[in-house]
Amino acid sequence: MSELKGACIFGQSGGPTSVINASAYGVIRAALDNPNITRVLGAEHGIKGVLNDRLFDMGQEDPAELELLKYTPSSALGSCRYKIADPDVDDTDYKRILEIFKKYDVRYFFYNGGNDSMDTCNKISKYMQKVGYECRVMGVPKTIDNDLFGTDHCPGFASAAKYIATSCMEVYQDARVYDTGMVCIIEIMGRHAGWLAGAAALATAYGAGPDLVYLPEVDFDMDRFLADVDRIYKEKGNCMVAVSEGIHYADGAFVSEAKTSATDGFGHAQLGGLASLLAEAVKQKTGAKVRGIELSLLQRCGAHLASETDIEESFMSGKAAVENAAAGITDKMVGFERSYEGDRYVCKTKLLNLTDVANTEKKVPLEWINEEHNGVKQEFISYALPLIQGEPKLPKQDSLPRFAKLKKVLVK
Amino acid sequence: MSELKGACIFGQSGGPTSVINASAYGVIRAALDNPNITRVLGAEHGIKGVLNDRLFDMGQEDPAELELLKYTPSSALGSCRYKIADPDVDDTDYKRILEIFKKYDVRYFFYNGGNDSMDTCNKISKYMQKVGYECRVMGVPKTIDNDLFGTDHCPGFASAAKYIATSCMEVYQDARVYDTGMVCIIEIMGRHAGWLAGAAALATAYGAGPDLVYLPEVDFDMDRFLADVDRIYKEKGNCMVAVSEGIHYADGAFVSEAKTSATDGFGHAQLGGLASLLAEAVKQKTGAKVRGIELSLLQRCGAHLASETDIEESFMSGKAAVENAAAGITDKMVGFERSYEGDRYVCKTKLLNLTDVANTEKKVPLEWINEEHNGVKQEFISYALPLIQGEPKLPKQDSLPRFAKLKKVLVK
Repeated sequence: MSELKGACIFGQSGGPTSVINASAYGVIRAALDNPNITRVLGAEHGIKGVLNDRLFDMGQEDPAELELLKYTPSSALGSCRYKIADPDVDDTDYKRILEIFKKYDVRYFFYNGGNDSMDTCNKISKYMQKVGYECRVMGVPKTIDNDLFGTDHCPGFASAAKYIATSCMEVYQDARVYDTGMVCIIEIMGRHAGWLAGAAALATAYGAGPDLVYLPEVDFDMDRFLADVDRIYKEKGNCMVAVSEGIHYADGAFVSEAKTSATDGFGHAQLGGLASLLAEAVKQKTGAKVRGIELSLLQRCGAHLASETDIEESFMSGKAAVENAAAGITDKMVGFERSYEGDRYVCKTKLLNLTDVANTEKKVPLEWINEEHNGVKQEFISYALPLIQGEPKLPKQDSLPRFAKLKKVLVK
Repeated sequence: MSELKGACIFGQSGGPTSVINASAYGVIRAALDNPNITRVLGAEHGIKGVLNDRLFDMGQEDPAELELLKYTPSSALGSCRYKIADPDVDDTDYKRILEIFKKYDVRYFFYNGGNDSMDTCNKISKYMQKVGYECRVMGVPKTIDNDLFGTDHCPGFASAAKYIATSCMEVYQDARVYDTGMVCIIEIMGRHAGWLAGAAALATAYGAGPDLVYLPEVDFDMDRFLADVDRIYKEKGNCMVAVSEGIHYADGAFVSEAKTSATDGFGHAQLGGLASLLAEAVKQKTGAKVRGIELSLLQRCGAHLASETDIEESFMSGKAAVENAAAGITDKMVGFERSYEGDRYVCKTKLLNLTDVANTEKKVPLEWINEEHNGVKQEFISYALPLIQGEPKLPKQDSLPRFAKLKKVLVK
């Protein structure tokens, strides 16, 4: 393949994860070490940093601090949720990006994110091809939602899954200490795909998890839900429920947004989230003591519970993006392929067309959800379990996390 | 001291903690090993287990499973919130307890809990003395709230504090990734004492924590709070707040229960908690993007983030209760005394009169709270930091927690 010398830009986009910085470190480290990449620039707040000419010179960072990125949650360079226009409708942003690329002789662009970010990446790649500016563009996957097309799984999912499963196991111990019983409802992220809510069932597989799990892949039925909870509560004296934030009724309306008897009949804004809403509905139905717990941001930044497998794979995906680009590849997203050597799980990178990945969602297969639509089957557990393995050696200072401290020196 | 042979009963009471079972293991292990203690009985659901004659024979447990109690959160024997009567008004329960004590020749009673539980313990002790039944009664402290009188700190506090500080540090990374800014409000347990909310400031001391911390020791002023948040949000573009669930207005009304402009004007039940309520108030005032996070049960059962210091001290307090009782002591609660050997923190047990401890609350000293009433001073940090040190070696199975599995064999 042709040798291409020039600078690279790396950016982070979309909701952060516990390990997105491990991917960042994979890109940055490999780019700094690559003889064809003359300068490694980090974009502040993703593509916005390119548009605003806010670029950090990653070569000026202390190598030891850069390495700490492997264990530092969230997007160290800043993220964005910037929807780039269709270039046929409005090419203003693209012209500006080209201008910046030329200004710094950028020949490599690495973008780390989910569906929308891969769309951005794809559009930029196609634009550069169209205007004949030679630049190799690679997507690096990221999303706790695990919903990227064409890859076995996504960096970030496993660490969130491990956080969710572990937290469920702990709450399980707590939510049954009194002889008076309790119904505990745990709200988990995932607007359209139920991978994360399903991960709560890992706790159940190890003897201390939710009795019921509801995913957005199937329609939610409030009456059936209340009957399920009531039955288990009467049977066991306790009931634990994991629920995806994205569950919806048959008509498509999100349960979190719909009015039920549990919500304010005057239609005022409901301040509490889905967990509170369902807890209140259960309380009215069963009279049980209830508790709604929203895992909120904690589940996507809980680096102290990250999966070492996830960290290593995230790093690997970033590194693979650079190595492939340097070898002449462009217009791809790095994905994962799973295989087994005997019982041993093995993960290798593969390359996917950006066009195929952009804006496509991968959901939990319906055949992995049980007939009653209130749990997942063993196939799901077997899929998720290898991904959460391994304890990272998190650097600590006085028993608190020691996160990376970057200098973030802007290039002139 | 006089030798006293007989069985012992151990019970757990009140809200659980991450390390209450480490105290249980301290009591059970020391009691099983003590030649004067003929049988070790665990009460199901605290004093209720005594009243209901539901007692487990701890000698029948697998020693390795018992040892796992050190790392198993929540009350393994079950807990209760049972308010025992004043024996001068109604001695029914006491007569029943005496009957059970006689039935099993119980000469040692160990009760693990907070203020209310020490009151129960004290009343039982005084009753047994009054009726001339020889029984040594010892309280073992427990409470994440850290509000027990006479002891430097309480088992359970440090692990919750570490969970809170670590979670704040992680959320801090997440809650500032976008250039659009955000106000994030974290709700922390502590109805009357602000020790736990104060622990969030440990995160700030290590560079990634709340800008503002509100404790229940001082009156809350909504206007000042909103002005504080607004100022910091304008200054930094982000603002992180830690707030104790027990904050109250000058008239004593809990903020969580009071009506503000953010709540439903029709006076309907507010399903969301304090964090949601304050987040909504901030949103109305500043227009900022807001996020309320309630740490809920997670903070008191997050054993994976326990402090090894806390685990060892919890174990030590249980063991000390048995050893002191066996040596002839009765009617005391085990407490902690802190000293320093050079810079090294040292913790030793001491004994407190149950009468002094029962129903007394220890709050955060006002001189440790800043003048603006929106933060804690260095004295608080210096107090809390030694307590959270050390990482426990948590047993895992397939990278998920391996908690104790007890047989719980009822005695006949």
